[in-house]
Amino acid sequence: MDQRNSLEVFFVSDRTGITAEALGRSLLTQFHEDNRRFTVLPYVDTDEKIDAAINQIDTVMQNGQRVVVFSTLSNETLRQKLINKDFFVLDLFATCLPSLQSALHQHSSPVIGHTHGILDKNQYLTRMDAVNFTLNVDDGMRTKDYQQADIILAGVSRSGKTPTCIYLAMQFGIRAANYPLVSEDLEKARLPDALKQWKKKTFGLIIDPVSLHKIRQSRMPDSSYASVEQCRKEVRLVETLFRQENITAVESSSMSVEELATSLMQKADLKRQF
Amino acid sequence: MDQRNSLEVFFVSDRTGITAEALGRSLLTQFHEDNRRFTVLPYVDTDEKIDAAINQIDTVMQNGQRVVVFSTLSNETLRQKLINKDFFVLDLFATCLPSLQSALHQHSSPVIGHTHGILDKNQYLTRMDAVNFTLNVDDGMRTKDYQQADIILAGVSRSGKTPTCIYLAMQFGIRAANYPLVSEDLEKARLPDALKQWKKKTFGLIIDPVSLHKIRQSRMPDSSYASVEQCRKEVRLVETLFRQENITAVESSSMSVEELATSLMQKADLKRQF
Repeated sequence: MDQRNSLEVFFVSDRTGITAEALGRSLLTQFHEDNRRFTVLPYVDTDEKIDAAINQIDTVMQNGQRVVVFSTLSNETLRQKLINKDFFVLDLFATCLPSLQSALHQHSSPVIGHTHGILDKNQYLTRMDAVNFTLNVDDGMRTKDYQQADIILAGVSRSGKTPTCIYLAMQFGIRAANYPLVSEDLEKARLPDALKQWKKKTFGLIIDPVSLHKIRQSRMPDSSYASVEQCRKEVRLVETLFRQENITAVESSSMSVEELATSLMQKADLKRQF
Repeated sequence: MDQRNSLEVFFVSDRTGITAEALGRSLLTQFHEDNRRFTVLPYVDTDEKIDAAINQIDTVMQNGQRVVVFSTLSNETLRQKLINKDFFVLDLFATCLPSLQSALHQHSSPVIGHTHGILDKNQYLTRMDAVNFTLNVDDGMRTKDYQQADIILAGVSRSGKTPTCIYLAMQFGIRAANYPLVSEDLEKARLPDALKQWKKKTFGLIIDPVSLHKIRQSRMPDSSYASVEQCRKEVRLVETLFRQENITAVESSSMSVEELATSLMQKADLKRQF
């Protein structure tokens, strides 16, 4: 890697840095790929810590690298220290608060942002409960709890059900169950009994056979379970089943869990639970 | 709820809306709590969809509600349509791209941002592998796989280990295992055999006894497992154990999973794996 030409991207925050990172990464998607390196500096909430962060960034600059800093510093003093340096800083609050203050006819208060903290204990518990629920009903377990599920994802083994359910629970507080459709289910060409009465909240995940083969292959190399033929057969049968039973299905192969979760919430008309 | 005085917050995006929401929620933490309602409008990527979104927002305005819109629309045409309306719009790209263009000496390209998409298939698989690993070694299972773990969290039952591990895996691609310390382990007053050789990457979670009691109580009401006495005893023993064994521990009671994960990565000197 050519260190000299790299773009050094820093995320500086007085909290977790998660928002600063989302902000910076979003903006950088609009520019040509450079050789980029990312450094997150979280919990920068004292004079000493901001000085240390500035030193670290200065050192990189003096080595000839280009530097871009994205920050979410709610404390005005710390923010000014960072902004007044020679490198480029885009601070979320400095950039966006003035116009928002006018819009809301209100001054902002320099309290530390709690975007990713426990702002409301009950909301947080709702979310953690959803995570626990989702883990308890993972992979077709405890189908008797399906009444409490907000959504049930069905699909063949390794089509992405579990990560999608966990993301729905963690990010949005959605109680998401998942049910693996195995060969026996697929050959009967009808919904398993466990899903029948919950058809309205059941959604399908489909995946292209080649991606499925690759994923299974890395898990159980050269098994009949991972073979292209088996994957083709299961995918064909599951698509037929979803069509026959009128189950809305989403293509998981080319989507990230974030995209799958967002798309499923839209289709199921689900809202964030907190 | 007084609908008339509520602040209606919209997040409009041509992708998942996750960044728009993080941005807006962060900024709003700086203002006094209103009666706020949040609506996410994802995948607004055509003229028809932006018109529908604008209509929806207009209707709310005409009902007398105050409206604030946060958007991440990478398409200039769609963005201008939204920005030129009567309501307040803070678009991430419109607000931040000009200064970033100067800093990078580069024009931005109007491609759709892929912040939460599958930008790099290998990076995405790293992350999903970490989720699978973490689920497989949840709750003290498969300790023989600890060699591949990036971090191991130890703590009493219901101290927040599992959600923290899952967040570490999902968000940062960290392979996080967790080991529940049960009474038998605690009374021996030394690390269980499974953890001994991995002491360097083992971190503790501690929780205050009252919070622990409440969490256990909601799970197994009025059990001896949930009793305040039992919780007090376990917390006292686990704190002693961590001290004796020189295990760095984090207080989970007042921290969200995002904060716990960020803090643990800092202490363990772990970097995002993609």
